[in-house]
Amino acid sequence: MAFVSDLERVGRLVEGRLAELLTADGLSDAGDARLAEAMRYAACGGKRLRPFLLITSARLFGVSEADALDPACALECIHCYSLVHDDLPAMDDDALRRGRPTAHIAFDEATAILAGDALLTLAFEIVSDPRYCADSEARAELILLLAKAAGWQGMVLGQALDLAAERGGLDKTRIAGMQALKTGALFRFACEAGAVLGRANAAQRAALVAYASAFGQAFQLADDLLDAEGDAKALGKAVAKDAGRGKATLVALLGIDAAKERLRALVAEAEGALSQFGERAITLIETARFVASRKS
Amino acid sequence: MAFVSDLERVGRLVEGRLAELLTADGLSDAGDARLAEAMRYAACGGKRLRPFLLITSARLFGVSEADALDPACALECIHCYSLVHDDLPAMDDDALRRGRPTAHIAFDEATAILAGDALLTLAFEIVSDPRYCADSEARAELILLLAKAAGWQGMVLGQALDLAAERGGLDKTRIAGMQALKTGALFRFACEAGAVLGRANAAQRAALVAYASAFGQAFQLADDLLDAEGDAKALGKAVAKDAGRGKATLVALLGIDAAKERLRALVAEAEGALSQFGERAITLIETARFVASRKS
Repeated sequence: MAFVSDLERVGRLVEGRLAELLTADGLSDAGDARLAEAMRYAACGGKRLRPFLLITSARLFGVSEADALDPACALECIHCYSLVHDDLPAMDDDALRRGRPTAHIAFDEATAILAGDALLTLAFEIVSDPRYCADSEARAELILLLAKAAGWQGMVLGQALDLAAERGGLDKTRIAGMQALKTGALFRFACEAGAVLGRANAAQRAALVAYASAFGQAFQLADDLLDAEGDAKALGKAVAKDAGRGKATLVALLGIDAAKERLRALVAEAEGALSQFGERAITLIETARFVASRKS
Repeated sequence: MAFVSDLERVGRLVEGRLAELLTADGLSDAGDARLAEAMRYAACGGKRLRPFLLITSARLFGVSEADALDPACALECIHCYSLVHDDLPAMDDDALRRGRPTAHIAFDEATAILAGDALLTLAFEIVSDPRYCADSEARAELILLLAKAAGWQGMVLGQALDLAAERGGLDKTRIAGMQALKTGALFRFACEAGAVLGRANAAQRAALVAYASAFGQAFQLADDLLDAEGDAKALGKAVAKDAGRGKATLVALLGIDAAKERLRALVAEAEGALSQFGERAITLIETARFVASRKS
């Protein structure tokens, strides 16, 4: 399938560029080596969906993959840092991620915390660097969007609400609100960043934001369905852990059949949001279909 | 003393602006409230030395306090996040900070980790916001400098090396290198940011960087002397903990008398670096004298 090979090809681009960005210049001390090694470990693997969305959204407006690659890598740094911190004993306490020991198991807790902090900070170093984009206005706008998406009224708040939900129960509206922050905010940034890099007009940007909103919900629902029904081996992480923890998921509230129906509706919504782009949006549409049907 | 009242006045400015920046717009959920409350708790108190240095450096070039206030607050967010994460059980495991329970004691470990992440992210949101400074070139440059100072080849690396030093021993050169990263990098940013905001020329900027380097070393040495000789009550945190942990400090290596002599030399070096500014640099000079002689 052409889509999957495109996704994998961009994934390799991101992998290669991250390896470059995570190569320390001129540092040799043992302590340096360990921190950088933990960062590279944490930034390794995964489908690179967020960078793919960013690069594909930018491509809609004729932006080359090379010009979108660095902000895409920055976004992936933020995603990876959030996984490292979420996996910590004080948070979700997960030992397995992408089929490998989580960072605090492979290294130690202090190193995992610092590697997460460093990946988060590196994201802003990458986006502010004039070498990938001479337009300081665009860079500053991307940073503002990224900080808002990732921060105390975005992703971090989503994680805080998710932890709070384990204590109390959340209703459907609140679960959706929490997930819009925890996983939705970075997807939205991915698509909006493509619009910023491509100097999209307001209608184009709004369409991408609407697509990202439906996409993010579809992604989360598919993720929860995989947790409820999936195969731990294929996923490379523990399954059915949400129910075991009393985690707030829509699948638990809606039931599996209604959740699958809602998933189909969200994919249709994502497709509909992009109608103004016609055939050019086919890859974004395929991406939504892909996340809804994935088995791992 | 005019200097101390100036420091306190700017501290109140920073305190007030941080309170505004940490007021969530339109959020009301219990989970929101807890995260934001932990951020405000963590951002409260302290002498606000770094913001003071930034504002005072910018003032050298005629930049108003109002125009330098937001980047100064962003810098303080980074400093406060680093304290929250450094205090965590997996890191320095401190229960007391500024005379109050540390964030993970006052809240819980997960909330402390997230509040730290959120303060770090907020710093970049603040610096990228066009409302305090219309010049996107300057904002992007400040972000790049801040990310480098705070990140994997700056402050975070310093903390990683400091933790590694508890395991092995460090010699004088390596301790100085670690401290230049762990505490020096943010002081350097403070002074360099003033130069960027004030559109300083290369010689002026280099002078401020040289001042910051001596200042940072003086600050750290004074801090270590306080730990070795100080009064826990005045400091609001535990003392003599460095020696107890085998922490790498210059005081332990040099002895107290030689450390005090070195401290005097560093203050003289900081003063000398600013000679081109003449009388206008008096506040920066007084700041260096202040940190060298402080008792808390």
